[in-house]
Amino acid sequence: MFHSELISLDNEVFRCYIGWSALLVLKMFAMSLLTGLMRFITLTFANPEDLMSPKLKVKFDDPNVERVRRAHRNDLENILPFFAIGLLYTLTNPSAFLAINLFRAVGISRIVHTLVYAVVVVPQPTRALSFFVALIATAYMAVQVIAAAAF
Amino acid sequence: MFHSELISLDNEVFRCYIGWSALLVLKMFAMSLLTGLMRFITLTFANPEDLMSPKLKVKFDDPNVERVRRAHRNDLENILPFFAIGLLYTLTNPSAFLAINLFRAVGISRIVHTLVYAVVVVPQPTRALSFFVALIATAYMAVQVIAAAAF
Amino acid sequence: MFHSELISLDNEVFRCYIGWSALLVLKMFAMSLLTGLMRFITLTFANPEDLMSPKLKVKFDDPNVERVRRAHRNDLENILPFFAIGLLYTLTNPSAFLAINLFRAVGISRIVHTLVYAVVVVPQPTRALSFFVALIATAYMAVQVIAAAAF
Repeated sequence: MFHSELISLDNEVFRCYIGWSALLVLKMFAMSLLTGLMRFITLTFANPEDLMSPKLKVKFDDPNVERVRRAHRNDLENILPFFAIGLLYTLTNPSAFLAINLFRAVGISRIVHTLVYAVVVVPQPTRALSFFVALIATAYMAVQVIAAAAF
Repeated sequence: MFHSELISLDNEVFRCYIGWSALLVLKMFAMSLLTGLMRFITLTFANPEDLMSPKLKVKFDDPNVERVRRAHRNDLENILPFFAIGLLYTLTNPSAFLAINLFRAVGISRIVHTLVYAVVVVPQPTRALSFFVALIATAYMAVQVIAAAAF
Repeated sequence: MFHSELISLDNEVFRCYIGWSALLVLKMFAMSLLTGLMRFITLTFANPEDLMSPKLKVKFDDPNVERVRRAHRNDLENILPFFAIGLLYTLTNPSAFLAINLFRAVGISRIVHTLVYAVVVVPQPTRALSFFVALIATAYMAVQVIAAAAF
């Protein structure tokens, strides 16, 4: 079998992968917009050319802006590797049940991570748990891809 | 039809996607080199082992270095998701005219974004416009991928 | 030939690409865990809700934490583009010998980069050399992809 046959909308694992990936791209873009919103609310601009009034100065330490930026960076560190590994894992022809639930686990836990980090701050360990669910699910896929490559 | 047949140099949408993606990878690497250049010009090094003279100290707040680093981070936030979603969008078999022009819009606007942010600073809203053109084009692709996954 | 036939575990270039990609995903996740470990060792937490004792305050400037974070960001800037371009390069049907050795060069040099940056600090130019080996190998792949798209 050519493994590229798995790249098809007839493959429910592939459909699930592309759906969650695209949803997570939109979620990540929402972080850019939220950062921009926070910059305007707190008048915290990082570039002289962004200052809307000659009375303002560049500012880098607003805690609300920096919180959203930390959540966004955490997305870069965790969601972007998922885009690559989710596709490769799909190409290893995994069990549909397992694969679909892993993709759901990554998607839902990363949305929860954003909500409790950057929207409504919730006491720990909520954020840590949502972080580790996505990390462990993605790392499991990576291990399966390594096994497929090696044997 | 197997959707993987769309992954072919005979498919002009795929060719356009891989061309712009590879060009944007080179553009992103240019940011690394520009950061390094700025560090040497301003003698701003972040690690003790990078200091070229015992008279220097680590420094984190040079505005020229930080400007290039902000532009580079903006690339990570916007171009890297495009690499994933552009491929998935190509696999949904979109209209060639629309897809090719969306890829061009992303590619050109991200190059403009870099030029007006990190090379020759231009008053707003030039940077904001180039940012939003790429964001909206990529978000549109993500929505189309979600639609393909759902129906 | 459909280029998608290259996406197969029977293609040794593809196998090599997916193996190194998955390994580098695990390596990147190790940076998250190392950052967390450093935060606990040095009691450096960036969010009020992460503070483990009312005596602690948020802190952003611990050099050990920041060193790991700089190494991690360098991964985002270099490894994530490789995930995209390595796949596209595989699809251009390159010489197996060259492609496999380029993937090895990227994988090994990025692991060396992490070791000498964030684990055991080694005098320059070790880190610079490991950085440039991966950058040049990935940039070469990008140029080959552009050539395949253009001709």
